[in-house]
Amino acid sequence: MKDGLPLKVSDIDTPALLIERRILEINIRRMQQLADDNRIILRPHIKAHKMPYLALKQIAAGAGGIAAAKLSEAEIMIKNGLDDIQIANQVVGPTKIERLFRLSQKAKISCAVDSPVNAREISAFFAKHGQKIDVLIEIDTGLKRCGLNSPKEIIKLARQLIKLKGINFRGLMTHAGHAYAASGKREVAEIGGFEGRFMVETAGLLRAAGIPVNEVSVGSTPTAPHAALIPGITEIRPGNYIFNDMMQVALGVVTVKSCALTILATVISRPDKNRVVIDAGSKALALDKGAHGLEQLKGYGHILKKKATLERLSEEHGIIKYDREEFLLGEKVRLIPNHACPVVNLFDFAYLVDGQKVLELIPIEARGMMT
Amino acid sequence: MKDGLPLKVSDIDTPALLIERRILEINIRRMQQLADDNRIILRPHIKAHKMPYLALKQIAAGAGGIAAAKLSEAEIMIKNGLDDIQIANQVVGPTKIERLFRLSQKAKISCAVDSPVNAREISAFFAKHGQKIDVLIEIDTGLKRCGLNSPKEIIKLARQLIKLKGINFRGLMTHAGHAYAASGKREVAEIGGFEGRFMVETAGLLRAAGIPVNEVSVGSTPTAPHAALIPGITEIRPGNYIFNDMMQVALGVVTVKSCALTILATVISRPDKNRVVIDAGSKALALDKGAHGLEQLKGYGHILKKKATLERLSEEHGIIKYDREEFLLGEKVRLIPNHACPVVNLFDFAYLVDGQKVLELIPIEARGMMT
Repeated sequence: MKDGLPLKVSDIDTPALLIERRILEINIRRMQQLADDNRIILRPHIKAHKMPYLALKQIAAGAGGIAAAKLSEAEIMIKNGLDDIQIANQVVGPTKIERLFRLSQKAKISCAVDSPVNAREISAFFAKHGQKIDVLIEIDTGLKRCGLNSPKEIIKLARQLIKLKGINFRGLMTHAGHAYAASGKREVAEIGGFEGRFMVETAGLLRAAGIPVNEVSVGSTPTAPHAALIPGITEIRPGNYIFNDMMQVALGVVTVKSCALTILATVISRPDKNRVVIDAGSKALALDKGAHGLEQLKGYGHILKKKATLERLSEEHGIIKYDREEFLLGEKVRLIPNHACPVVNLFDFAYLVDGQKVLELIPIEARGMMT
Repeated sequence: MKDGLPLKVSDIDTPALLIERRILEINIRRMQQLADDNRIILRPHIKAHKMPYLALKQIAAGAGGIAAAKLSEAEIMIKNGLDDIQIANQVVGPTKIERLFRLSQKAKISCAVDSPVNAREISAFFAKHGQKIDVLIEIDTGLKRCGLNSPKEIIKLARQLIKLKGINFRGLMTHAGHAYAASGKREVAEIGGFEGRFMVETAGLLRAAGIPVNEVSVGSTPTAPHAALIPGITEIRPGNYIFNDMMQVALGVVTVKSCALTILATVISRPDKNRVVIDAGSKALALDKGAHGLEQLKGYGHILKKKATLERLSEEHGIIKYDREEFLLGEKVRLIPNHACPVVNLFDFAYLVDGQKVLELIPIEARGMMT
């Protein structure tokens, strides 16, 4: 221990969150390279890590700003020196609109809208203070969550936005999260290509209608490399790529060697010759078997260096079934989570490690930022 | 607002966690009454709420102590004045055993064991300091997680424990969590009855072998009312009952009127006439469809006063499908979660409310206590 920090991974009390520095840095560089090669902006979505420390690393590597899902996440990021944030979400209701205004006094802020009612409320608040907020229309490219998908309705909303005094209409944004339901690489590429083309074509329709479009922002981790290739795209907003996880592996986007985030757990019980129990359950690994409520994966995480399945999770227990492998009581195992983003949200801090060496403790400062 | 606290529920920014005081107090009283009627100890499991404030309320109502799943949870509870805690889990490895020892210097502490290897390690540490720790053998009554289920092995382990210098063998404990897979009330009653009888019979076998058994501790929220009836049971350890949730409703244990915990969310998008999106996703509601990795429920929570299904969760979005009901943009809705325990673990605080009136902000101090 130095300053209370364990020296080696094997000294860390469990369950714990580990980030492998070398993989992390490769992941950051690789996505930045993709953006640079295509001369577009990388705006990483920080809901994947919730750590100002990592957001600043992404900016240092060349990112043009960040995206956040929540105002509270943005508030933490601004406090830590981030100064260009897209709230990649709807901001609805008077309390949130006032908070959006306060954020916009401290940093460059934009948000998404998909409704004229909401847009008018946002505009009224900013106009009252003699100001404008940058706004993008959210487009639904297939996820069926928020956003418009009819070109007619999109043009109609854009026409309304450019007339609103408190709004500075900047362009279009989408998240093709339904790519997480793809059967593999080929379908991911198709969804990413469609995402890019639909957005660029829609931007073209707006321009043809005399509405200037400056930003065409797309991207999830799987679709970014495909959407980025479509000329006219100005920005990608992947988040998960900084860590990767078993969802990305299942899609064929990366291999386990590109997964930077692991959970360290301890074998706490061997009640049966084919069953062992670890001290990481759903309160450490989350229950995701895919993104957006999808169920793509078997088990609840990938156990490194073992041929065994994490079959069942209670809140504090993970139940492993195995045939040949031996697990010792007290043995520590490392797991790649199915979905990194909700896992990070369960921990207050992560250990940055280099193999067996513990480098640093990183606080997850935006963890639990709900509103 | 007074001291930053919203006056009314409708003023609360979302997503937020609400606890309905009247239901909470009825739930606390009802389980205490069950224990009192059967002249046994109620030892509530605090992993369900993680709030010292509520643990102290349970003690004030008559609970004989609390149970915790983690040493870190116990540490927070002791700091807040709780002084009798059962770690209802295995405590494995030198770091954790040292922490167990330190806790035992501050409060009455016991823990579970299911392995002689672990028991010897615990004993060695306590004996080195000339002390003993209270220990219960964990019994597997059907959940197939930790614990022993063969009477022969249980007797063998008990014989080993009574010889260990650092261990004070107190008795047996189990958690019949497989009751959450029951088809309904009748099967829950059967599982609870079996749980109680198996434990009492096993205690009888130990006594017949000359091993004194002081404590026979059982219970989950659904099985407690059934196991408690078996003469010889000394203690129940339910947790979830303080709130209840849709899992308990599905089992027929309670109705929605007994559910004290709700999530307040806002409608942030109405992109389609049959689809609205709320600002509570898997990072607010968790993905549980049952306990222990089971899938008993449809949807991701029960929307109060609406005929609609919460069909899909992204991390920050809940997608509601509906036929007849109208949802307005900006409208606030309340949801009973499928599983209250992991939901509490996602929030830093909860609002104690009485109908529309906000009474108090309760910090969830043991939230995120992982180790």
